[in-house]
Formats: sequence, C-alpha cells, structure tokens
Amino acid sequence: MTFSPEAITQAAIDSFAAADNPRLKTIMQSLVKHLHAFAQETNLTEAEWMAGIQFLTATGHKCDDVRQEFILLSDTLGLSMLLVALHDGAQQGATEATVLGPFHTPDAPVLNNGADMTNGAPGEPLYVTGRVVSPDGKAVAHAMVDVWQADAEGLYDVQRGELHNERRARGLIQADKEGQFAFWTVLPEAYPVPTDGPVGQMLVNTGRHPWRPAHIHFMVKAEGYQPLITHIFREGDKYLNSDVVFGVRPSLVGKFQSHASGSAPDGREMKNSYWTLDYSFALQAG
Amino acid sequence: MTFSPEAITQAAIDSFAAADNPRLKTIMQSLVKHLHAFAQETNLTEAEWMAGIQFLTATGHKCDDVRQEFILLSDTLGLSMLLVALHDGAQQGATEATVLGPFHTPDAPVLNNGADMTNGAPGEPLYVTGRVVSPDGKAVAHAMVDVWQADAEGLYDVQRGELHNERRARGLIQADKEGQFAFWTVLPEAYPVPTDGPVGQMLVNTGRHPWRPAHIHFMVKAEGYQPLITHIFREGDKYLNSDVVFGVRPSLVGKFQSHASGSAPDGREMKNSYWTLDYSFALQAG
Repeated sequence: MTFSPEAITQAAIDSFAAADNPRLKTIMQSLVKHLHAFAQETNLTEAEWMAGIQFLTATGHKCDDVRQEFILLSDTLGLSMLLVALHDGAQQGATEATVLGPFHTPDAPVLNNGADMTNGAPGEPLYVTGRVVSPDGKAVAHAMVDVWQADAEGLYDVQRGELHNERRARGLIQADKEGQFAFWTVLPEAYPVPTDGPVGQMLVNTGRHPWRPAHIHFMVKAEGYQPLITHIFREGDKYLNSDVVFGVRPSLVGKFQSHASGSAPDGREMKNSYWTLDYSFALQAG
Repeated sequence: MTFSPEAITQAAIDSFAAADNPRLKTIMQSLVKHLHAFAQETNLTEAEWMAGIQFLTATGHKCDDVRQEFILLSDTLGLSMLLVALHDGAQQGATEATVLGPFHTPDAPVLNNGADMTNGAPGEPLYVTGRVVSPDGKAVAHAMVDVWQADAEGLYDVQRGELHNERRARGLIQADKEGQFAFWTVLPEAYPVPTDGPVGQMLVNTGRHPWRPAHIHFMVKAEGYQPLITHIFREGDKYLNSDVVFGVRPSLVGKFQSHASGSAPDGREMKNSYWTLDYSFALQAG
C-alpha cells in the first residue's frame, strides 16, 4: 500500500523486481525513477500530463510505414545524438559518428568509383573525393561507401513521391585498394525536419527552428573495421550551431570549395561553376 | 556544436531557452534533463532505444476513441498515481484521492437517493450507504455522488459492446441535506487491466500481474468544496498490496460486510445473502 509520493515511486520501482530479464529490469526501474523525478521536479499537474498523453498519442498516430514521428521526437530532444555519443568508441584519430537519420535506404544504386550519382537531383555540381584509412592513416582497401543526401531544394529522393522510388543523389561506391573513392553529386543545402506533425508543433510552441545545416550522409564499412555512420557538414552553414537534432561535431565540418567553370579534377569539362569536397574517413578496428 | 554526451544534453536543454511560455520551457528542460539522465544511467544502446521507439509507436497505434493505451502505460508506471498524490491537498481529515481510471463516463443515469443502479449487471447484491461531510464532520448538503464500477465478471458496462451504451452498475445520486446517500449495486470483484496491447506485453515481459483489487469508483462534488475522485477498495482483496496501477491507500479500504438472507437496512426483503458497505466522504473546502 502506498502513502506519500516517494512511497508510490518506490512501489513502482519495486514492481519490476521480479523481472526475469535483468537488463529489462534495470531499464524499467531507471525509467520509472527518472520519469517520477521529472514529475516531482516540475510539480507536473494532471492537466499538463493529459496534454502530454495527447501529444504522445498524436505522435503515435502520425507514425506509419514512411514516417517515424517518435524518432523525430527522439532526435529533436537530443536523445538520439546522446546515444550516438555514448557509444561512439573514442579511439584517437577515428572519424566521429553522428545520427543515422530517417532517410537511409538499403537499396542505394551500386555505382563505379568516380561515377555521378546526381540522376537529375536539382543542385550545383559537387565532386567529392576522399580516402578510407585506419586511425594511423594506413589505407583501408575496398571499403563500401554508402552516400545519401538532400538536394538543393532540401529534399531527399524518398520524400519525392513523384519519383516512384527512383534514386537520386544516393549511391554505394567501393573504394579502391588504396582506400580512395570519388563521386559526383549535388551541393547539399540546409533543410527543415518535417513540421506537419506533433513534433513540428512542439518546435513552434517552444520557439525552436526546425532546420538542419547542409550535410551529406556517409555509412562506411570494411572487413575488420567497425561500421561508421556519420555526416559531413558544409562549413559556414548558418545552422551549424543550432542543428535541430544536435548532430554537428566540429570534426565533421568539411571544406566545400567553389570553382569557376573549367576542367574538374577528374578531367570533366564544367561549363558552369562547381564545387569540390575532399574528406577522409578513419575507421576503427573492431 | 556538441562534443561530449554532457555537452549534447546541455545543448538540448539550451534549445528551449527562447520558449515564450515559461511553464512549457520549465517542463521541456526538465524532461530533457531527466530523459538524458535515464539514458546515461542505463548506458542505453541505440538498439534498445529502437525497441523503445517501437513500443511507443505500438502504444500510440493502440489508442482510439475507446482505448487509451498511454494512460494505461502512465498508470502501470505509477506516474498517474504520483500526480494524484502530488496534488492531493493534504488537509487533515479529508478523504484521500486516487486515480480516475479510464472508465468514467459523463452520462451516468441520474437516480433517486436509495435507488438500485444494478440494471442487470452480474454480481451479488450490495447496499452502499454513506455521508458526505466536511473534514470536521459537518454535513455537506446535496452533494452529487457519481458512482461507477466493474461487475462480478470484472467488466465495466462500457467494456461490453453488446450493451450498446446501456449503463449498468453506474449512476449519479444526490445526497440529502444531511449529506446522506444510499444505493444498491453489485459487489465489485478484482479485474485485470486490458492486456491485449503493448502495455499488457510489458507486464508479461517484466513478470508483473495485471490485476487491480476490487473497488468502487466515486466522484463527489458539492458547492464550495473541491471535487474528490477516489475509490473504495474491498478489505481482504489479495491484490491490495500489488495493485497494478498503485492506486491503493490504506484509508480507502472499506469494510464490505456479508449478510444472510432477510431484511436489508432499507427494508428490502433479500431471498439470498447480500452485502453492505458504509463509507463517508470528507470533502475539502476550496
């Protein structure tokens, strides 16, 4: 039987004492402790919590096969990035990780090293080069470099229903035996996370903007190394210090360089101006 | 830009600094702090949190016009009862509150004082009497006593689709000028909360039973007094110490007395055995 608020919290914690799964028991008991501490600290009212229940319900109802509003909530509360940071092995010299985000697909087109993955995506041309190395700088041969990004209109291919699953500004490239890779794509631009759901309303209600600074996603995998999930952000983007999902780490800001028309590094003749980016990824052994 | 887990937490807290609504700002900042503390304390993995995201999504999808799975989650984690206890004014002598639960309806039939609200609900007859008073024991005249409960099969009328919104074991009675009220109903029995959703699965996975000890719900209102939302529990119920929603307070356990056939207190002739309960409610001024 329960009496005080503290006794109710203890009873709720104790209710999980008989759980067979020790990890689940730890998680549920910690969850109850911190959830109750939040309610105590704010002296949360029943009416406020009912508004919270309605928010969670609307968030659940917004989720379907192509939309995950709870991941967006987790992202915008910094929880997703916190988990990345907690588990990002800290080996000296390795490239840092950031959030996966909701737009990776398992079916990126497999392209030749040096190919153009634009496929009609709007945006200024960008030539990306880099190497996959170990933290001490030695080549990692034949790594798979999975790339995806938003275009100049701030949209990923999967957000354009008119494309009927056609892939743009997305591709899977195998680095050579020296770890070198290259591809053409478009310059990424900043974009807002989806704001037509409860999370968007939460951002409005709390005076937060919904923008992510411009970036390209990379997932890099090689035999004998830990997979790396990260972004490269555009230096100078005005949202670098206020990414709505807290994904920016200074080491992940890349120099995107502008060039006048002429011969690109791979010999391609450019009639208009274009951009280049060179960034190398250091994978941790594991 | 963020570096360490602690810096990410601080950035997420700071992101709400510009919120116009000071109460919402306080709540969101406290929520982020405690949510991140939970993740830190458990060293929560991304895979575990993805299981959490899936649980929350399924909980949202279970919610509809007649089912509120997030309230059930809040109840079974003790949060609902914690909020009741935090805000239950502590005036000496007043009846304690407990959770509202999901089965109150605003359309209970209005019945005469002393009437029978059974209306076909299965169960042994129970005659309930009581008074509505102030904490110093003086009569509160003409209070409205709203009553609802599960029947002998552990079901509320609203859980029986075959009733087509007919009301059973539910009613609204006005106490007389001495604060006295009486009604016939059926003896309540213990029942499990709904277990066919994600919360039921959570209970199974953590070794918890889904039972609530037998009780009758009361909502008592009178001019010049704070509304009281509470239950009266059946003394001796085997779940009194392990109510799945932590709603039991010792002061709310009532003496349900069994009687052989014969004349009931209101003169009704009982061919079979029946029960009585006498319980008085003390309302706080406010």
